[in-house]
Formats: sequence, structure tokens, C-alpha cells
Amino acid sequence: MGDLLTTPSDSFLKRRRSDGDRSRAAILDAATKLATTEGLKGLSIGRLADRIGMSKSGLYAHFGSKEELQLSAIDTASEIFVREVIDPARAEKGIARLEALGEQFLSYLERDVFPGGCFFAAAQAEFDTHSGPVREKLAEAHRRWLGYLERQVRAAQEAGEISADEEPAQLVFELKALLNMANSVFVLQRDRSALERARRGYRSRLEAARG
Amino acid sequence: MGDLLTTPSDSFLKRRRSDGDRSRAAILDAATKLATTEGLKGLSIGRLADRIGMSKSGLYAHFGSKEELQLSAIDTASEIFVREVIDPARAEKGIARLEALGEQFLSYLERDVFPGGCFFAAAQAEFDTHSGPVREKLAEAHRRWLGYLERQVRAAQEAGEISADEEPAQLVFELKALLNMANSVFVLQRDRSALERARRGYRSRLEAARG
Repeated sequence: MGDLLTTPSDSFLKRRRSDGDRSRAAILDAATKLATTEGLKGLSIGRLADRIGMSKSGLYAHFGSKEELQLSAIDTASEIFVREVIDPARAEKGIARLEALGEQFLSYLERDVFPGGCFFAAAQAEFDTHSGPVREKLAEAHRRWLGYLERQVRAAQEAGEISADEEPAQLVFELKALLNMANSVFVLQRDRSALERARRGYRSRLEAARG
Repeated sequence: MGDLLTTPSDSFLKRRRSDGDRSRAAILDAATKLATTEGLKGLSIGRLADRIGMSKSGLYAHFGSKEELQLSAIDTASEIFVREVIDPARAEKGIARLEALGEQFLSYLERDVFPGGCFFAAAQAEFDTHSGPVREKLAEAHRRWLGYLERQVRAAQEAGEISADEEPAQLVFELKALLNMANSVFVLQRDRSALERARRGYRSRLEAARG
């Protein structure tokens, strides 16, 4: 499932974990959390070493450079997103799965899975005007999440639950807009009512799309 | 009008401009543009001095500190936003003004008024997990823009153009979500179709709100 939002070159989660892997996973978990409050740009090997009480040379043994660390943090954040948002909705099908994906995303914000809101919203806003592999990996994760949602819309259309008049990319654009807005208002204004507003908007837009 | 999104302590735009003011305005114009590509955090006096070919000491004479420069850049960005998005919609009333505000916002993105998309979306995502006067000023600008849109919804309701069943804050949340999504997809994916998707969603949501 780890390749749903990005395509990690190293599918280490599927191997039996060695001690080195476990340590790498713990480091990356801390790194993704730090990135949502300090920024993915602020995720230097030195700052992470301070945060987790590890030597810089120890971190260099895991990640050769700041960019390598940032790319690995994106892979880890993708795995967390799949586990926290996408997997819990798999039990549902069609329009119910789309509804569950919205709920799970809002719950992922509400439960502070990352301390600074959605990892991807924060990182994309930081890197969107740059070029290079970090930006490309983030843009790819964004396209994959939209693509996944579009496939759910088409499945719901095939099941006759969503009107054939709805263009999947347009409907997904509108639904995802509400989830993004929940994140930005929730984090900026520290106002939980944003989650409820997004929930109402998301449900009523899905209701209007019924076939 | 400059106080619509923020409350600048110095209403210098209303006075006849001295040379010092003109120079200050030109510096701040460059500063807001730099902030949308390099980040408002990246807006140091040193970096701005390099960019505009002015001495650091000359900039220190205008702004005593990096934070003072950041706060002044937010005031300038508010004035630009009012001039580019809010003022052109003033000729319209009621629901037509809400429609015009959406169009003007999308046009402000399309015309690259700032090279990195909406100044406020970028700056808010950067500072939303921080505390201090920069974050407070950005959060206030956000509330004022939402408040302005809500007043337009209420005016349209009083004119009988929008259903009394619509809760203004909810409708504004949904409309603004589409504008934010246009900005984030347009900047991240460099895809102009995001503007058209937002336009379609915005219009059809307003249509559904008619009384």
C-alpha cells in the first residue's frame, strides 16, 4: 500500500525489519512530525539530530544528505496517510467509501496525526514554487491522491450510485477543496468548527452527486 | 480600504507620498513578491537587499528588524489584494458581487499578481504552526476576508437573492475552499485547468444557494 501515494524505491516495510530498519523507521516518524511544524525545508540533519538526541554522524549513516532525508520523510508520510486515511475506508464500497475517505481525512486532522495538520498540505505549500526532486515527489503524491479519489467516483458511477453527468475530476476537485479548507482553517485559526463545516459541505456535495 | 484585511498602523497610502514613502512602497512591493516564492520566513533584510540592489543599512533605516519587514509586507500584500480582488467587484451588488469576487480572485491568480500564487495562502501555510505577531496578523487577515465575504452573503439574502436557509459562514467556507484549491493546484501542478474547475464549482454552488 505504501506505493499508493508515492513510489518508494525501497519497500522496506514489506521486509522483515532489521534493527537498522526499526531505527530508520523511528527516525523518519520523528522527521515527518517535525516537518509539519518547522517545515520540510527546516528538516536538516542537524536539527533532526538535536530533536531526537542522535549524533549527526549517526543520521548521515542513514541519510546521505538533507534532500535524501526529505525524500524519505515524504515516503514515510505517505505510508502514514495510507494507514490513517485510506486503509480504514477500504471496508466500504462506492459512494460509502468516498464518504468514509472524507471522514477519515477529517479524523486524521482532529486526532493530530501530525502536530501541524496535514503533512502534504504543509509541504506542498512550501515547495510549490521550487523545482527539484522534493517538489516532484510532492506533486506526484498529490496527483496520486486525486487519481485514487477519481477511481472511487468512477466505481460509484458504475454501481449507479453517482450520476453519470458528474465529471469525476470536477467532483474530486470540489470534495478535496473542502478537506484542504478544513486543514488550513483548523491549523491557522485553531478552530474545530472548520472540521464540522467541511463535513457538512462534503456530505451535501456527495448527496447532490447521487445518480 | 487598506484596513479591510489588516489594520496597518501607518496609513501612508492616504498621505501625499514623500520620496521616502515612494521608496518604501517600491521596496515593499518587491518584498511581497519575493515572499511568495522564497517564503515570508525567507524574507530577511539581507536577502531583500541582494534582490533589489540596496544596502542592508539602507533597508534597516526603513525597517528595524526582519519581523518589522514581514509585518509591513503583509500590509502591502493586503493593499494589493484589496486593489486587485475586492475593488473591481464593488460595482456589483448582492449575488453578482459574490460572483465577481470569485472571478477577480481567479483572475488575480491567472495574472500572476504574485509570482508564487496567493500571498496569503503561502504565508498562512508557513506561519500557521507558529506564534507571534506575524502569525496573528495573518490569522486576522484571514478572518477579515471571510467576514467580508459573509457580509456580502447577508446583503444578498436581504435582497432576496440567496435563500435564508443558507448559513453565511457555511456558504463562505465552501466558496473560499474552491478558491484556495484553485491556488494550490495551479501553483503546485502549474495547471490552468484548476482555475476553470474552481470557476465551475463556485458558480454552481452560488446557483444552488439562490433564494
